[in-house]
Amino acid sequence: MKLSEIASILECSIADNDIDIVGINTLKDAKENEISFVSNSKYVKDLENTKAAAVIISENLASKLPANCIPLVTKNPYWSMAILSKYFAPPIEEETLPLPQIGTNSKISPKAEIANGAVIGDNCIILAHVYIGAKSVVGNNTVVYPSVTIYRDCQIGNECIIHANTVIGSDGFGFATNEKGEHKKIYQNGNVVVEDDVEIGSNTSIDRAVFGSTLIKKGTRIDNLVQIGHNCEIGEYSVMVSQSGLAGSTKLGRNVVMGGQAAAAGHLEVAPFSTFAARSGITNSIKEPGKTYAGFPLMGHRQWLKLQAKLARLIK
Amino acid sequence: MKLSEIASILECSIADNDIDIVGINTLKDAKENEISFVSNSKYVKDLENTKAAAVIISENLASKLPANCIPLVTKNPYWSMAILSKYFAPPIEEETLPLPQIGTNSKISPKAEIANGAVIGDNCIILAHVYIGAKSVVGNNTVVYPSVTIYRDCQIGNECIIHANTVIGSDGFGFATNEKGEHKKIYQNGNVVVEDDVEIGSNTSIDRAVFGSTLIKKGTRIDNLVQIGHNCEIGEYSVMVSQSGLAGSTKLGRNVVMGGQAAAAGHLEVAPFSTFAARSGITNSIKEPGKTYAGFPLMGHRQWLKLQAKLARLIK
Amino acid sequence: MKLSEIASILECSIADNDIDIVGINTLKDAKENEISFVSNSKYVKDLENTKAAAVIISENLASKLPANCIPLVTKNPYWSMAILSKYFAPPIEEETLPLPQIGTNSKISPKAEIANGAVIGDNCIILAHVYIGAKSVVGNNTVVYPSVTIYRDCQIGNECIIHANTVIGSDGFGFATNEKGEHKKIYQNGNVVVEDDVEIGSNTSIDRAVFGSTLIKKGTRIDNLVQIGHNCEIGEYSVMVSQSGLAGSTKLGRNVVMGGQAAAAGHLEVAPFSTFAARSGITNSIKEPGKTYAGFPLMGHRQWLKLQAKLARLIK
Repeated sequence: MKLSEIASILECSIADNDIDIVGINTLKDAKENEISFVSNSKYVKDLENTKAAAVIISENLASKLPANCIPLVTKNPYWSMAILSKYFAPPIEEETLPLPQIGTNSKISPKAEIANGAVIGDNCIILAHVYIGAKSVVGNNTVVYPSVTIYRDCQIGNECIIHANTVIGSDGFGFATNEKGEHKKIYQNGNVVVEDDVEIGSNTSIDRAVFGSTLIKKGTRIDNLVQIGHNCEIGEYSVMVSQSGLAGSTKLGRNVVMGGQAAAAGHLEVAPFSTFAARSGITNSIKEPGKTYAGFPLMGHRQWLKLQAKLARLIK
Repeated sequence: MKLSEIASILECSIADNDIDIVGINTLKDAKENEISFVSNSKYVKDLENTKAAAVIISENLASKLPANCIPLVTKNPYWSMAILSKYFAPPIEEETLPLPQIGTNSKISPKAEIANGAVIGDNCIILAHVYIGAKSVVGNNTVVYPSVTIYRDCQIGNECIIHANTVIGSDGFGFATNEKGEHKKIYQNGNVVVEDDVEIGSNTSIDRAVFGSTLIKKGTRIDNLVQIGHNCEIGEYSVMVSQSGLAGSTKLGRNVVMGGQAAAAGHLEVAPFSTFAARSGITNSIKEPGKTYAGFPLMGHRQWLKLQAKLARLIK
Repeated sequence: MKLSEIASILECSIADNDIDIVGINTLKDAKENEISFVSNSKYVKDLENTKAAAVIISENLASKLPANCIPLVTKNPYWSMAILSKYFAPPIEEETLPLPQIGTNSKISPKAEIANGAVIGDNCIILAHVYIGAKSVVGNNTVVYPSVTIYRDCQIGNECIIHANTVIGSDGFGFATNEKGEHKKIYQNGNVVVEDDVEIGSNTSIDRAVFGSTLIKKGTRIDNLVQIGHNCEIGEYSVMVSQSGLAGSTKLGRNVVMGGQAAAAGHLEVAPFSTFAARSGITNSIKEPGKTYAGFPLMGHRQWLKLQAKLARLIK
């Protein structure tokens, strides 16, 4: 897409040469042929090192861009990015892609739908009513139970088991909001990557990344009705018990255990081998590995027990 | 259905003329050819203005009925209504309805099931394993991802996106219970109406109304694994984050935000622009618009922070 | 499977005769031709009365086995059992089983998948995209809405209603973990039994038992997005409101009510007619029937109200 078209869509002017833009990305990850945006003062520090060809930016920050990076000045850069995201969203299905490629000895139900461009490995079992989207890849020896939906561009590893009616790759919950309170969808053009030996329960939702990947590392165990937001990262051998949830961009280290109905806010980092009792509510990053927590607000598990004892005394 | 048949089903006698009854409804909304019921003292005030042709009622309240309204006296009117609700439930599918009507340029997967009597607008994408029930209507430019189930008689607006494995129009959780503790299903003969520009995440459940409609107004954003009970109303541009829930008949004003795992009890009204932090528990109506809340029991967000500080001191 | 093969898989030696083993089971329930295991000191008491032909056991406990029971000594008996569980797992589908048997007057959507060996009763309605697994049995007059998945070997009673996208019989969340933090799946070779007159909402997950059955007794009402772990038992006419959950092996008596988002830890017993307010967290068994509870930690409902009043005073 020509930069001039983008400027026209966003109703702003560009001073400079009309280059080709192939995608949108964060300031950090944008390549020389991508456009980026800055909508939050937290990311201003990433401006000086960005490789993006152009950046959607508010007027007051435009001077901080590197010399070779073209500013697209708009009043609400986040809203502008939301508008633009739609133009870089691939179609849901692409009939022109090659027929799905199925490995040897895999058993695909004739009632499953494998979209063009998908690749299934060897010795897989794909049951009825499964949907595997365009360009998604499933490894070897993986079992996908009925009515699982895997959106396009996702990757599932070897030796995985995905239980019925789970969704992998649905859109992250992303939108910009204007001063009238109206929302504009931010198309989620990233994907989900599930590594080897992962088991995922039934009716669980794992959202695709807005940019890049939501990542479920090898050996993880995820139970039923679990929510994993866009751009999360689950460390190796972590365990998420039923009805627990992670808001967007939170990263768990390896062997983290989230008890039933436990939840974490977005953009946190949780140290390896942390354990969270059922219904814990995590709102800050955890730096020290190997501890056990409970409660909301979160505290050490022993502290929580002490607090409950104090409260019990209050009502006597 | 003749009123005499109804009286016979409910094992009660009628004094008067044998009229035709076409549906059951609340005292407030019942039309001249419908039957109603009163099972809760809260609704006695609606008796005097009801237009219902007949009302299922306990003996002690029968005298409060308007003169032209026929009483059907039973011991447990709620249980009687439950019994009767089944007789007014339409069949799940009706082969005699016209073939589904599909707008121009819409792409319907051959693995989707569009029931007879359904109407799909223009430029829609309906993916594999979707089910759209009898007489349901989908507007223009709407995308329905795989394994979404839309029950009969529901309406989905224009420019909507419904993510995989979400259910719209499943039966509300309604039943009468007798003195032995046994339950009798109340058939949910209402529907769900989703207005334009609504996005709904994956694995979410929106129940149909028992009478009338569950209503999701335009511009609303609903995340994954959200529960919306029967007869709820979600105001324009409201936001429900993952794993949040509303019990039946609760009404949110416009631009209300329910944080992750937040929940509201039933039959509440929430003022516009209210914001509820993650895991808030709302048990009373909110009258003042524009405030931020947290906790369970619910309190102002600042008060909640203050309370947590006090509790933290308790354990030192 | 010969016991010598099992010993070879588990890399341990057997001293004795090479008998045929047909399944794994708990010490209590194992029959004369089954193997069992002991991995938790809590179950040591079951050793002396076990009928199991052989038991996977740690060296220090081996002497407690009855005389006729063959020990298979391994370092981590739970891990060994997990390894072995795979060998006793039946295939997901079996083409050699008889074609599904459908009762009279049942209406099965051609877009449903009924696996070989399944049996459907009379007057059932099975909608599109439903999956009913091998050897599963559905009673008479039962309605199964679209995209419900019922795994193999499950039993659904008469007069049941199962709403869209619900999963019955997905694997319980069972695995052994070794000293490196790696997990080994425990195959869940039990089933789910749903008795008569049960209604289950949409997007709910009911896991199959690891051994034996997860049991939902007659007249139970289960709402949307509910989690029921493996080996749970729900008493007659119990009610589980939306987003509530039970961890594994918990048993509810009859007419227990779990409010919205309420949850119980595993291995508990809850007395009949207990009521739990929304978001209750049950961590101990309840012995006295008929009481009402709230809070997490759980307390009497009145106590909880008192506590909240005290806390409200704290912040004044």
